Amino acid sequence: AAMSRPTPRDSLRERVYHVIFDHDTPAAKGFDILLLVLIGLSVLAVMLESVPELGRVYVGWFRGFEWLLTILFTLEYIARLAVVRRRWRYALSFYGVIDLMAILPTYLELVVSDAHYLMAVRVLRLLRIFRILKLSRFVAEGELLLQAVRQSRAKISVFLWFVVTSVIVAGTVMYIVEGDEHGFTSIPRAVYWAIVTLTTVGYGDIAPQTAMGRFLASILMILGYGVIAVPTGIVTAEIHAATQRRAVDRECPGCRLTGHSDDSEYCRRCGGRLLELEQAPGSKGGG
Amino acid sequence: AAMSRPTPRDSLRERVYHVIFDHDTPAAKGFDILLLVLIGLSVLAVMLESVPELGRVYVGWFRGFEWLLTILFTLEYIARLAVVRRRWRYALSFYGVIDLMAILPTYLELVVSDAHYLMAVRVLRLLRIFRILKLSRFVAEGELLLQAVRQSRAKISVFLWFVVTSVIVAGTVMYIVEGDEHGFTSIPRAVYWAIVTLTTVGYGDIAPQTAMGRFLASILMILGYGVIAVPTGIVTAEIHAATQRRAVDRECPGCRLTGHSDDSEYCRRCGGRLLELEQAPGSKGGG
Amino acid sequence: AAMSRPTPRDSLRERVYHVIFDHDTPAAKGFDILLLVLIGLSVLAVMLESVPELGRVYVGWFRGFEWLLTILFTLEYIARLAVVRRRWRYALSFYGVIDLMAILPTYLELVVSDAHYLMAVRVLRLLRIFRILKLSRFVAEGELLLQAVRQSRAKISVFLWFVVTSVIVAGTVMYIVEGDEHGFTSIPRAVYWAIVTLTTVGYGDIAPQTAMGRFLASILMILGYGVIAVPTGIVTAEIHAATQRRAVDRECPGCRLTGHSDDSEYCRRCGGRLLELEQAPGSKGGG
Amino acid sequence: AAMSRPTPRDSLRERVYHVIFDHDTPAAKGFDILLLVLIGLSVLAVMLESVPELGRVYVGWFRGFEWLLTILFTLEYIARLAVVRRRWRYALSFYGVIDLMAILPTYLELVVSDAHYLMAVRVLRLLRIFRILKLSRFVAEGELLLQAVRQSRAKISVFLWFVVTSVIVAGTVMYIVEGDEHGFTSIPRAVYWAIVTLTTVGYGDIAPQTAMGRFLASILMILGYGVIAVPTGIVTAEIHAATQRRAVDRECPGCRLTGHSDDSEYCRRCGGRLLELEQAPGSKGGG
Repeated sequence: AAMSRPTPRDSLRERVYHVIFDHDTPAAKGFDILLLVLIGLSVLAVMLESVPELGRVYVGWFRGFEWLLTILFTLEYIARLAVVRRRWRYALSFYGVIDLMAILPTYLELVVSDAHYLMAVRVLRLLRIFRILKLSRFVAEGELLLQAVRQSRAKISVFLWFVVTSVIVAGTVMYIVEGDEHGFTSIPRAVYWAIVTLTTVGYGDIAPQTAMGRFLASILMILGYGVIAVPTGIVTAEIHAATQRRAVDRECPGCRLTGHSDDSEYCRRCGGRLLELEQAPGSKGGG
Repeated sequence: AAMSRPTPRDSLRERVYHVIFDHDTPAAKGFDILLLVLIGLSVLAVMLESVPELGRVYVGWFRGFEWLLTILFTLEYIARLAVVRRRWRYALSFYGVIDLMAILPTYLELVVSDAHYLMAVRVLRLLRIFRILKLSRFVAEGELLLQAVRQSRAKISVFLWFVVTSVIVAGTVMYIVEGDEHGFTSIPRAVYWAIVTLTTVGYGDIAPQTAMGRFLASILMILGYGVIAVPTGIVTAEIHAATQRRAVDRECPGCRLTGHSDDSEYCRRCGGRLLELEQAPGSKGGG
Repeated sequence: AAMSRPTPRDSLRERVYHVIFDHDTPAAKGFDILLLVLIGLSVLAVMLESVPELGRVYVGWFRGFEWLLTILFTLEYIARLAVVRRRWRYALSFYGVIDLMAILPTYLELVVSDAHYLMAVRVLRLLRIFRILKLSRFVAEGELLLQAVRQSRAKISVFLWFVVTSVIVAGTVMYIVEGDEHGFTSIPRAVYWAIVTLTTVGYGDIAPQTAMGRFLASILMILGYGVIAVPTGIVTAEIHAATQRRAVDRECPGCRLTGHSDDSEYCRRCGGRLLELEQAPGSKGGG
Repeated sequence: AAMSRPTPRDSLRERVYHVIFDHDTPAAKGFDILLLVLIGLSVLAVMLESVPELGRVYVGWFRGFEWLLTILFTLEYIARLAVVRRRWRYALSFYGVIDLMAILPTYLELVVSDAHYLMAVRVLRLLRIFRILKLSRFVAEGELLLQAVRQSRAKISVFLWFVVTSVIVAGTVMYIVEGDEHGFTSIPRAVYWAIVTLTTVGYGDIAPQTAMGRFLASILMILGYGVIAVPTGIVTAEIHAATQRRAVDRECPGCRLTGHSDDSEYCRRCGGRLLELEQAPGSKGGG
């Protein structure tokens, strides 16, 4: 990423841009950490304010803290708009929309009284951590996981289709077998029960009570218990394959031994230096 | 599949046959999608009608919609019978029986009043999606999953036998230990509890209450928690092996490097073109 | 197994021995299947008799059926003792003891009135299926699974130790945090709760109710949710390794390609005939 | 480890040191086992004493046994301090602190009355088993598991971050959707529910009751059901890679065949003797 960026031409706008949008100088890193801490605190405040015992007593403190954060986030949003080259592209980007949605509710509350809960949307700002992590050592791992999931997309779709059909069929049958008086008051509710059962969550708020219903539920449970093996097998095989592919690409230039772990720098047989793991391509602009 | 079919000899019957039974021309695809949407809507209608608040108020709408769909499905069934070469073979095939069962309940209701719930069988028509997907890119993945499960059949039977024996033994012991007053009123019910526990569903409608019962239940839980590793291991190893086998078969004709992912078209070392994944053999006739 | 047996010398005793203890002639297979069906029926009868609604009404039928089976099993036990060469070795073997325990309760009931439930021990006779399956195609698979589990013994012990320590520590802490009034009335009970939670069973009969308790429970849940990955990983890697080892041993004698599935008989590249999977060594005598 | 230790120079202090801190002579092993048994008994006593029915009746016995163990553990602690070379290093080490914390509560109770429950900390002494196992055959396996977990650290962090963000977002949304009257009285409580659901524990003490809430909960359940595949896949791939690496290192010196299981001593193709698995480096001093 450092390569693709122009040499800094000491203008204020350039410098602010680097601090806000980049993640590789001490100042930029400091800003990232400060931002994450503030987002974390704002989420914590929203969570604690919702606790009746706290929210009622410290209502003033929460209100004050909320306005403080809103003003800070507003300044940050304005700064982002001011220094970014393509304003609309940022404003309409995924992170741009979330940044705006994080400050709007407090202002809206001055007009509409019910806007308060919209503040919960601030939780989404926590996603920014993924962008900040982009340039750290988590990249390669995150990329590998995403790649594994993306590769298994078709297999997972087939699996999900199987799960959805199963719970609809099972729910419908149980609605007929158990009926109204045992809590299966409608097919959607019976399907909800089937999902709760197949995924082995098992709340117990709805549970079969006839012998036949229990027998069918047993089959669904054993199915759900065993069927979890399928997505696990899919993802495991993909992660293994992705790791393998990387390992093959990392074969020792000296003795051609493969299978070096990600953090090895030297060949474990001949001691020759291994090639670096390729860096994920740096992404410039946009957040 | 396109290869093995005779060149169309523009008769109406041939053309209708292609639209209904094939999936590879725009018209045939359009028909498939329309059919899936109608099946989806009919399932949704059956589900929503069962919700007391909706079913009672919009009873007329639901009745009308049901008759509309029944007539459409009847026309489709007649068309299928009319254009297919071997009528009885279709009528008695898996999909043929389901197609018939999807339209019968509405007519039966005119005579018998309790036939309404039989309509739930329409859910099974959703299985038709698997046939439609047959020729799409999900084939290879679905085939691989099925192959993995088929290969592990013997291993999974051994595992299921172990699970069934375990829950019968555990249920019987718990029936003796806990007894009537704690909800274990019969051995079948205690076995049901053992299944709920071993599969980690855990409704909590029946739960051990003596110290001894809780101790035995703990062992069953840890067993169930650990034993899930076995089917997962079986399926994972099979999926991995199946992927591997395919990957070996896909070795680069140039440099003989293997391990290319399914969607690679070129060798990642020498750039040579890889061979196509073999298409699953097209299946003609029958639904 | 057929090799290691002496040529039949038509004596009655020899012939009965083959029918009862072997599994490879039509007569022997018929006897095995009949025995399994009778054991299955006896287990089913014990289960159904425990259901109050059935047990009270059909008490005569159940009593009669029980005596019929007991007499048949007694005759079988006597026949086994009569034809086997080393009587005490059979009588004291695992299956010999179970066979005896399956018939004793009915006789004991004539003297002691509470012996009835001991009949549940008959469930254990179902284990005989493993011996009968010994010579079928399930052998290789069962062997492979057992081998995988045996290979992972040390790893699984480390894992189980970790689980046991975790639930004791978690239970003790929760006993102090939640205390008597929220259902954590003693440390053993709190440990039971910790097992129910860590294994993701989650009955809900005991559940934390303080903020602190819920926070700690959340950590335990996420731990239990993630930690299941470890035994799964262990067993999967072992099954994979065992499969691999077998696959390597099965390399094509012609082109040396490996990775053939268990049921392949010909090499998928050169069509050469593959070597048979070695048969598990036949086990003679003892049940 | 035996190599790196100086030849015993029969001083008392040296001999006591070997018995207490080492694990490889009969005397040292005997001491280890005795210590483990005493720790186990002390944990059992703390657990049983907390059961109201037992604690009240046998209060004298428990008190006496507690003092007996406390005195023994105190003597052991003094002996450790006496023979170890660097006293403060031991006293401040992980095991040193736990050893002290295991004896303090009984003495504290003479002064402060509420110190009794602190005795639960004695459970932590059970961790000492890991140190004792250090030199047994569990080393290699434990090392391999730890190595697999350590290698997956980055991947697991990404996964945990995903889980934490998911439950906060899901909890907040459910708090708004379900609200006070259905048990979702605050966001932290709703987040607790989301954790209980995502991890498939499912107590059922809080459960959604509106159609919308149930629909969202269903999505969360299926997510949690499928997402478990990711850590499992990560750990499995790592364990497999670690096993592989070890297997590659264990190739037969004769025919270069790899893939020998850990307990093989001879090559399964050519019968040549395999190299030993390298012993984990012995760790001297400190506990």
